[in-house]
Amino acid sequence: MVPPGIGGSVEGLHAVAAALDVGRVVSLTIERGRVESHGDLIAAARATGAAVEVVDDVRPRAETSAPQGVIAACRPLRTVGLDDLVHGDGTDAVVVLDHLEDPRNVGAIARSAAAAGMTGMVVAGRRAAPLGATAFKAAAGALERLPVAVVSAIPAALERLREHGLWAVGLDGSADRSLFGLALLTEPVSIVVGAEGSGLARLTAQRCDVLARIPMAAGVESLNASVAASLAVFEVSRARRGSE
Amino acid sequence: MVPPGIGGSVEGLHAVAAALDVGRVVSLTIERGRVESHGDLIAAARATGAAVEVVDDVRPRAETSAPQGVIAACRPLRTVGLDDLVHGDGTDAVVVLDHLEDPRNVGAIARSAAAAGMTGMVVAGRRAAPLGATAFKAAAGALERLPVAVVSAIPAALERLREHGLWAVGLDGSADRSLFGLALLTEPVSIVVGAEGSGLARLTAQRCDVLARIPMAAGVESLNASVAASLAVFEVSRARRGSE
Repeated sequence: MVPPGIGGSVEGLHAVAAALDVGRVVSLTIERGRVESHGDLIAAARATGAAVEVVDDVRPRAETSAPQGVIAACRPLRTVGLDDLVHGDGTDAVVVLDHLEDPRNVGAIARSAAAAGMTGMVVAGRRAAPLGATAFKAAAGALERLPVAVVSAIPAALERLREHGLWAVGLDGSADRSLFGLALLTEPVSIVVGAEGSGLARLTAQRCDVLARIPMAAGVESLNASVAASLAVFEVSRARRGSE
Repeated sequence: MVPPGIGGSVEGLHAVAAALDVGRVVSLTIERGRVESHGDLIAAARATGAAVEVVDDVRPRAETSAPQGVIAACRPLRTVGLDDLVHGDGTDAVVVLDHLEDPRNVGAIARSAAAAGMTGMVVAGRRAAPLGATAFKAAAGALERLPVAVVSAIPAALERLREHGLWAVGLDGSADRSLFGLALLTEPVSIVVGAEGSGLARLTAQRCDVLARIPMAAGVESLNASVAASLAVFEVSRARRGSE
């Protein structure tokens, strides 16, 4: 049910460079036309004992549509349990993805969460966007360092996080309350992001302590899920820094 | 050089519904399997005099990889000149794209700009992400209502916007100043977004009155261009609303 690890296959210049940085690449496959311009990747692979194979075209082996001439087979990254995800020191801020379907959104949210200094990310292991090469490419390296917990059910995960002191704040475009300036964000929080199109599942929304919206111009329906999540995680960061 | 119009071809449920809403669809092509679930699109097409064709698979005719079973040929939307883009009433806030390459980013930024209540968007007509079906799909309808100016050179466009009273604020990850809380955002402004990877072109950065960064956690290199732009346009919105 829950995968033993993520990131076994990584594609694209940024994502592969990040996997090389943490020394988990087992074999690097690179296109002949990239050898000269990306000798740094080859050198990094050799330095960590990874095999290097030069081919004419990596695309037949690639999962993503634009692997940028480089793919890597890697030792998977360990995911963590919820109890290990949180620090319990009063600063926890976790982003929880309620069954997003587009792996590009999942990767983009990981990138923003790392940039905003979030503690980690929680994703559901079934019916959810896989944490495959597409997500790793969109994350541009962020999934190498952002701790990820893969759970079987989001409502139960929110309960568990609450036992660790995290309030659950769900993003909901129809909520009355604005996320901007929400005082609760200085407390330990889970920021809960709904699926593209359908939003938060009913059971998930019921487990949230607060539902809040991103304030939008009149006549606009919704934001891209990764944009909404990014605005939310940076709102957490801003609340904790105070205004700069 | 500068296209006479944009959005001549639109794909995907959201984007096609938005084009139908403004009555510019000439012909709708829909997959047999979508006819029952999306009879509303067919009814809307017929109500506006558009032709309707039912096919087994739209993908061979599609530009995007996931057209969701529906594509539309449309009367193009008129782009506007810079002088017509601005209102000149002290509230102008324009997002300027400095040669972004990924049409998904261009579309996502348009969606966020419309949601944040921006005045319009400026894109360069050469070497820039085209405003084709991929951008329209990512915009999820926003390009139907957000005014767009297509210009041949961004630095000259910033000059022209300055003549209309707009300060130019460039996003630059290496800038000293934080964008968050920047007082200038309550004035008429152009928010200038650099290309994926390379950032602002030198000449563009020179024409900016202020360079500002999105504050990020230590060790993080950069944000996705559409996320950075989204954070910036919502910062403008926030600065103008005051805290909620």
